[in-house]
Amino acid sequence: MENNIKHIGVMTSGGDAPGMNAAIRAVVRACTFHKIKCTGIYRGYQGMIENDFEELNARSVRNIINKGGTFLKSARSKEFRTADGRKKAYDNLKEANIDALVVIGGDGTFTGAKVFNDEFDFPIVGLPGTIDNDINGTDYTIGYDTALNTAVEAIDKIRDTANSHNRLFLVEVMGRHAGDIALNSGIGAGAEEILIPEENLGYDRMIESLKRSKKSGKTSSIIVVAEGDRTGENIVELAEYIKANLEGYEVRFTVLGHIQRGGAPSCYDRVLASRLGVGAVDALVAGQRDIMVGVVHKKVTYVSFKKAIAGENEIDTDLIRVADIVSI
Amino acid sequence: MENNIKHIGVMTSGGDAPGMNAAIRAVVRACTFHKIKCTGIYRGYQGMIENDFEELNARSVRNIINKGGTFLKSARSKEFRTADGRKKAYDNLKEANIDALVVIGGDGTFTGAKVFNDEFDFPIVGLPGTIDNDINGTDYTIGYDTALNTAVEAIDKIRDTANSHNRLFLVEVMGRHAGDIALNSGIGAGAEEILIPEENLGYDRMIESLKRSKKSGKTSSIIVVAEGDRTGENIVELAEYIKANLEGYEVRFTVLGHIQRGGAPSCYDRVLASRLGVGAVDALVAGQRDIMVGVVHKKVTYVSFKKAIAGENEIDTDLIRVADIVSI
Amino acid sequence: MENNIKHIGVMTSGGDAPGMNAAIRAVVRACTFHKIKCTGIYRGYQGMIENDFEELNARSVRNIINKGGTFLKSARSKEFRTADGRKKAYDNLKEANIDALVVIGGDGTFTGAKVFNDEFDFPIVGLPGTIDNDINGTDYTIGYDTALNTAVEAIDKIRDTANSHNRLFLVEVMGRHAGDIALNSGIGAGAEEILIPEENLGYDRMIESLKRSKKSGKTSSIIVVAEGDRTGENIVELAEYIKANLEGYEVRFTVLGHIQRGGAPSCYDRVLASRLGVGAVDALVAGQRDIMVGVVHKKVTYVSFKKAIAGENEIDTDLIRVADIVSI
Amino acid sequence: MENNIKHIGVMTSGGDAPGMNAAIRAVVRACTFHKIKCTGIYRGYQGMIENDFEELNARSVRNIINKGGTFLKSARSKEFRTADGRKKAYDNLKEANIDALVVIGGDGTFTGAKVFNDEFDFPIVGLPGTIDNDINGTDYTIGYDTALNTAVEAIDKIRDTANSHNRLFLVEVMGRHAGDIALNSGIGAGAEEILIPEENLGYDRMIESLKRSKKSGKTSSIIVVAEGDRTGENIVELAEYIKANLEGYEVRFTVLGHIQRGGAPSCYDRVLASRLGVGAVDALVAGQRDIMVGVVHKKVTYVSFKKAIAGENEIDTDLIRVADIVSI
Repeated sequence: MENNIKHIGVMTSGGDAPGMNAAIRAVVRACTFHKIKCTGIYRGYQGMIENDFEELNARSVRNIINKGGTFLKSARSKEFRTADGRKKAYDNLKEANIDALVVIGGDGTFTGAKVFNDEFDFPIVGLPGTIDNDINGTDYTIGYDTALNTAVEAIDKIRDTANSHNRLFLVEVMGRHAGDIALNSGIGAGAEEILIPEENLGYDRMIESLKRSKKSGKTSSIIVVAEGDRTGENIVELAEYIKANLEGYEVRFTVLGHIQRGGAPSCYDRVLASRLGVGAVDALVAGQRDIMVGVVHKKVTYVSFKKAIAGENEIDTDLIRVADIVSI
Repeated sequence: MENNIKHIGVMTSGGDAPGMNAAIRAVVRACTFHKIKCTGIYRGYQGMIENDFEELNARSVRNIINKGGTFLKSARSKEFRTADGRKKAYDNLKEANIDALVVIGGDGTFTGAKVFNDEFDFPIVGLPGTIDNDINGTDYTIGYDTALNTAVEAIDKIRDTANSHNRLFLVEVMGRHAGDIALNSGIGAGAEEILIPEENLGYDRMIESLKRSKKSGKTSSIIVVAEGDRTGENIVELAEYIKANLEGYEVRFTVLGHIQRGGAPSCYDRVLASRLGVGAVDALVAGQRDIMVGVVHKKVTYVSFKKAIAGENEIDTDLIRVADIVSI
Repeated sequence: MENNIKHIGVMTSGGDAPGMNAAIRAVVRACTFHKIKCTGIYRGYQGMIENDFEELNARSVRNIINKGGTFLKSARSKEFRTADGRKKAYDNLKEANIDALVVIGGDGTFTGAKVFNDEFDFPIVGLPGTIDNDINGTDYTIGYDTALNTAVEAIDKIRDTANSHNRLFLVEVMGRHAGDIALNSGIGAGAEEILIPEENLGYDRMIESLKRSKKSGKTSSIIVVAEGDRTGENIVELAEYIKANLEGYEVRFTVLGHIQRGGAPSCYDRVLASRLGVGAVDALVAGQRDIMVGVVHKKVTYVSFKKAIAGENEIDTDLIRVADIVSI
Repeated sequence: MENNIKHIGVMTSGGDAPGMNAAIRAVVRACTFHKIKCTGIYRGYQGMIENDFEELNARSVRNIINKGGTFLKSARSKEFRTADGRKKAYDNLKEANIDALVVIGGDGTFTGAKVFNDEFDFPIVGLPGTIDNDINGTDYTIGYDTALNTAVEAIDKIRDTANSHNRLFLVEVMGRHAGDIALNSGIGAGAEEILIPEENLGYDRMIESLKRSKKSGKTSSIIVVAEGDRTGENIVELAEYIKANLEGYEVRFTVLGHIQRGGAPSCYDRVLASRLGVGAVDALVAGQRDIMVGVVHKKVTYVSFKKAIAGENEIDTDLIRVADIVSI
């Protein structure tokens, strides 16, 4: 089987995540190792449709392991959702003699990959690259660890100034559907409250909790709020509500936004990306396809795209208990 | 004159700033050097009124030079604005045998100090500690340099992810009355536009400028907005306006908020704080009072409180030109 | 069983590690949660012998989760290796009505704990706190993740300047007996060579490898060297050897030293420390003893001290292969 | 005069410094602003001799303001010290129709520029880019502020772990001839001792001072040592000496090395680089040459190359006094 693959294309797609460059680098160098030609595809599926290709070699990817973002850029492609768009993409790959693809992204990316493989029987292996850690079949996604550190470092700075009396700080972190970033960064930053979409605590319980917190001797509070939490309509409104309903508090807010998607990747994310990049090429060389490479209990593992995107994210209830205890 | 001062009180007041701890440490150790007793006053003028004092020695202030915030805490005091409040404060100082004060803060702090000195003929020397760099008689205030670095590091992370097509990021930084933080951090972060209260550009010119920017080949833009800029009502509203009036742009925003007040101080702020802390005690020992210690062209200098707070902040127009040129 | 434990002592011992403060905080607050009295023991076993105790409550441990080091301090104790020393320690615990201990440290700490438990039948639970990640029964030790990030951030800076022609940088990282820090930080930092005690590559192969590297088009190289590697006598000598035996290279070196033990802990280390701290108190409350709390595949688990310290560290050979491939 | 310059070459030379990229970017964009063609010269004078040129436009320099190092690379050139080498360089500039040069570097760079201008009457303006801050005619050089922050952040981490009893840490920072980095980073990091080439304290006084320090209640010490200090032969030898002559201390050392040359530039260095880059092109446009652009008391100023390189560095004795007082 091994000799079938002579030319691999690599791309990043969807929301970018720190460590994507490290993953591309590992794919390119694993190609060099296996004596396979490697071509970078710019701007994900859209670049595939628009023939935005560039040959890469081991030297093309030097000095990028520590850079946030993705030098191949990332884009969302409406056209790839059409049969016509995918046909164009396929024709371009054939024209360029690309035999197989490594795609780095999240569930949208893998859904596209699965459809493409089903239609054209084209070998694709996926790498989980997203700060949301919401992919099945891998313990961690590339970028998640970095995003947590970024959030925690930002909240640490707020903590420095929070020591005055009766101050309340709201910090919005990413997570439209899942509270993992909020829960972990909230614990990491020592937040007094953590609001997550899985709970949507509600105004009354939040206010009660803040009152208890004050009684226990706390003179200021930090509340970490996941983007997707619906305790308030949004963070501005939430801040207004608290001001109106909790006497004697000065309320301030911070919206971290895309800060969390950038920054130099953590060592964990770089090593993970390196392992998965090598693992993806190994898999293609071994004749595998239609799978995602992940890491489970520190070992590289493989899971079908179908399973990777099937998952329901479940919040770790043990960790919610830990959050409650350490914020006493 | 030198032997008059036997006991100095030190406090921080107003919004806190990185480097305040380094300043307190320098004051305390300069007292040790001059064989003067030193007492820390918690929570600024309010703690002076409430007798919230603690004796400090050289060992009390170890391991704080690198900490953000202020371990003496800071508060605003309504009571100190009343003659009664100030009388209480004076009585507490007398009771504690405190001969002189070093106050670390901004213009509000110095205004209070001036009134207090006028009323009770009490020796006070001030240190400029505020991230706003809006004090006359000093080139830099303690905390300003750190706040700029914090803002720039945050925007760098956004820059990492901004490389997609047609993305526009708004980043709100501090500065209610002055655009210095926005202008400097905007240049430092390579922002495409900088909105400052001194200009209040207006919607039309901003939209025009963004259109030009796009034409010149830029595929994404970062706009740094000072809190006090009134191009839009606020950043949420500004984002909505741009979305509605600039075709084909995805708009995202970040509010840095109090992140800018925290964090480990930069080397510059620590050295500045150390110099000014020593300078303040030197001044009191030399019989000076009713002045602020600042740094002008790398030398420690003294200016009356009256002058320190009289200033109108003027934006550096040369720097606006530089901003325009480097964002071409 | 639950009601047996009324008073827990907590201490840190051995080399300190980032996240120890977060672990102490979690232990103290878990005690509050379980309505158990908690006493901090300063300077590890030595403080136990010297009765250096302080009662802690939920408020005592605020604002420490982000601090490197350990506020309870850490020390090595020769006296605790004697029966007399341990007897004194035991008497002090009894005198203070302490029923059980949580000890945070590495294999030396657990060895001591095991002996103490064997002699006095005293309930002890351990937490793995060491940057070396060399403890059996846990996937990660508290501090390891932070140390890797610290090393990688430092090497990133060297990478920035390494882009001149024919420069070679040696960077010594921690690891007297194990190459894990070198291997992971080396991959993370994109090092061209990684020298670890498990291999002790030897001069000739190292020089050969550097020559190949140069031929492949690399214009500069970073070599990460574990403290315990014996390819050279030490890093100074290694630098000299390369200078003498590899033509046309400028050689520079950096010794990271204790930089790796400090710094604000990463989010991962803080969450790990929080989970394990809560897990330790849970275990004592449930009547367990003579065990270490660890994390295995993201779940809190327990292992006997005997097993925790029995381990031989084995280097991950898959990861060595990844290192070889990504440095092509 | 203004129309004489139609084409500017820009290069970096000597030891690299954080902010050099920001300076290049500013030069390139100021050229765009003035409608002047701009060409990047790789590897300094050596690239000038080897015709290693690339045309640059405003888009070529995007996303580099935050990167350490210099994308034009830097090299030392022996050949440029010969008349032949300089002739080749001149011919290449003429061939490429380059009318003027902006050179970014230190005293070696300016010495070369001066010679070249004298020989060929070629318009050159210099920018001070070096971490050493040892250039006359400017308050600060590009990169100095960042190097101080890097040193201080590293020492902060050591401070975290230094809290055990009787530990002594030596940290070697850059500065072969000047103690400015050591003095400022030592104050910033709260070092107990600072050893600089301007003083070369000597063993006896250092040991005496450490003994006093211990008596005053300090339980551990950090000593910052400038590379060029000759209290000991080198840091390894110094560590051995202290171990042998100061009872009861554990001694550890760290060599920061080239870490100090890298890293993302501070906001100050980026703004400085932006101002000076614009100022350099302004100067050439105005017909100036044979000068360096610097900043004096916050204003852009010009000084002849002759003066820029004539200077004797003098250590700030006031700052030495501050260092002594705050380390009490």
